[in-house]
Amino acid sequence: MLITELAERSATPAATIKYYVREGLLPAGERVGGNRTLYGEEHERRLRLIRAMLEVGKLSIASVKSILAVLDEPGAPIAHTFDVAQQALSRSAVPDVADPTPEALARVDAVAARAGWADCDDNIGREIAARVIDAFAGAGYPLPDDYLDRYAAAARIHAEADLGAVAVLPDPSRMTELMVIGTVLGDTLSLGLRRMAQAVVTEERRRSS
Amino acid sequence: MLITELAERSATPAATIKYYVREGLLPAGERVGGNRTLYGEEHERRLRLIRAMLEVGKLSIASVKSILAVLDEPGAPIAHTFDVAQQALSRSAVPDVADPTPEALARVDAVAARAGWADCDDNIGREIAARVIDAFAGAGYPLPDDYLDRYAAAARIHAEADLGAVAVLPDPSRMTELMVIGTVLGDTLSLGLRRMAQAVVTEERRRSS
Repeated sequence: MLITELAERSATPAATIKYYVREGLLPAGERVGGNRTLYGEEHERRLRLIRAMLEVGKLSIASVKSILAVLDEPGAPIAHTFDVAQQALSRSAVPDVADPTPEALARVDAVAARAGWADCDDNIGREIAARVIDAFAGAGYPLPDDYLDRYAAAARIHAEADLGAVAVLPDPSRMTELMVIGTVLGDTLSLGLRRMAQAVVTEERRRSS
Repeated sequence: MLITELAERSATPAATIKYYVREGLLPAGERVGGNRTLYGEEHERRLRLIRAMLEVGKLSIASVKSILAVLDEPGAPIAHTFDVAQQALSRSAVPDVADPTPEALARVDAVAARAGWADCDDNIGREIAARVIDAFAGAGYPLPDDYLDRYAAAARIHAEADLGAVAVLPDPSRMTELMVIGTVLGDTLSLGLRRMAQAVVTEERRRSS
């Protein structure tokens, strides 16, 4: 298809598409005589992925570029691709605070152990969770273990849903792509539904009190 | 206490404390003769709250100011304070995309109905969730109802834990404060634990396949 059609199908201005090509986010189209350049369905899909990361994930152009580079590594096992993408996608979420205390890391490890989770030492989520535990304590509201365990139970529900959605896809490149999109978008979905549930539970408790 | 002690106890430079006072985030201390200004425990607590919102919640100074203004409204019912704070805290999370489609909003309403959630129409989470549903579909990965229902179940676990932690506090101002802190920090805790759970479930599925 020509750039005008790609622009229309992806609801992205042609100038923006050209910008993504210049920045190396989108592969160039195929030049076919004169001034015509042809784009394929893989361009359309890549474009949707880029926009999801920029607009919903609120990632920088540089972060999107590094994630796409990983996605495009030929022959990389899915688990590796996912791991690198997870790190890149999570970096902007790491709270701007001092390194987590050993106590907070130990508490995250204890939560993982109670949940039966193995091998989380190198996971970026461990550090993020530990910093949150420190921040709650610093604000004068230390979190009880029970609270952390409930959040871990919810996280497992998320992960089972995420991996379940990935498992039904027909090919590995689509699987990795959904993992990346799902990591970005799923956080926001969780945030939205948590807001709704908080209001619902607040109202239920008010009525029953 | 003097500003030097407040600075030490809150791990915040004195210049930053003065900046927060100038910006109207922190009430001024009490002038007592000469150049001495005294600060109390309420300053220390407010300072921790400000830092949690800025550093972990990554909110702007302007957002923090608007949330604190709501917290300080005298005689406002907790549910109102919480609602306004929730909106302010969530605005930065609203994806930069077109308004949600009526179809996506209807799907969120259907999820809420299946979960037995009433009165979510004005909740900002409804719009956020709908935009995420649109973004997944736009990226070529329409979300099945089952996925949304599982995320809603996890959101309810979050909310029960959040409100449970609030309910054990002794006074309303502390309750509202924890609701605000918890809204900001809980999103990040959920994100961190979700990363860990995704890696755990990925590995479990790899081993059993």
